[in-house]
Amino acid sequence: MSVALSDNLKQVLDGQVFVTVATVQPDGAPQASPVWVKRDGDELLFCTTAERVKARNLKRDARVSVVVIDPAAPYNYAQVYGTASVTTEGGRELIDELSVKYTGKDYDTFSGGHGGDGTRVVVRVTPEKVSGQGNLH
Amino acid sequence: MSVALSDNLKQVLDGQVFVTVATVQPDGAPQASPVWVKRDGDELLFCTTAERVKARNLKRDARVSVVVIDPAAPYNYAQVYGTASVTTEGGRELIDELSVKYTGKDYDTFSGGHGGDGTRVVVRVTPEKVSGQGNLH
Repeated sequence: MSVALSDNLKQVLDGQVFVTVATVQPDGAPQASPVWVKRDGDELLFCTTAERVKARNLKRDARVSVVVIDPAAPYNYAQVYGTASVTTEGGRELIDELSVKYTGKDYDTFSGGHGGDGTRVVVRVTPEKVSGQGNLH
Repeated sequence: MSVALSDNLKQVLDGQVFVTVATVQPDGAPQASPVWVKRDGDELLFCTTAERVKARNLKRDARVSVVVIDPAAPYNYAQVYGTASVTTEGGRELIDELSVKYTGKDYDTFSGGHGGDGTRVVVRVTPEKVSGQGNLH
């Protein structure tokens, strides 16, 4: 069952916030890494490559936890729990869109030509629960 | 086998950085939340309460992942993988020490008297692997 994001959380996600995504390894250990993020309605989109650990983890177990800390007020944070789909379609477009959002440059320019570093995938997170502290949840 | 932290990572951890801690739920889903942190040599210390999810998770499964993003340069980040011990001894002192580090005030003052919100525990993370991007790992 998907849930709606608060207006405050939407506003933070629409800015240049680095969020941390947690997945679970094949051996059951936690794995976490920061990503650029954008919002599509109440869903969170980020980009990675098919070869990277978090994509492989999410293809095996779609459960994901995303921590969003308001850069302007770090005691406002949200913990978004949901499930993720991983698709290759639109991956190349999404990394460029995210790169422009965060750096003002397309990804090849930002990464100095290292933009072809794997099969780009779109990870789409459908939130099922949002908790946290402050005014984001 | 524990590993040493880089000088750059130590410097970031010694500042007012909010790190995100990932653990695993009883049902195998990931769980993540931000915390204040301090460093003791190469180990990371944070405080929570015995009743909170992450403490209960870590008592059951000590494997932990901590993401540290350099607030001054967010493309520098570290992923610290390790194991955590959870003890009640020193919990009260640690939350005050962390509160002073991050807010300049003891925890009761910072929290408006809500400092007695559970049994304070010390979580000590022994790093076993550090990866990431940039100059922190």
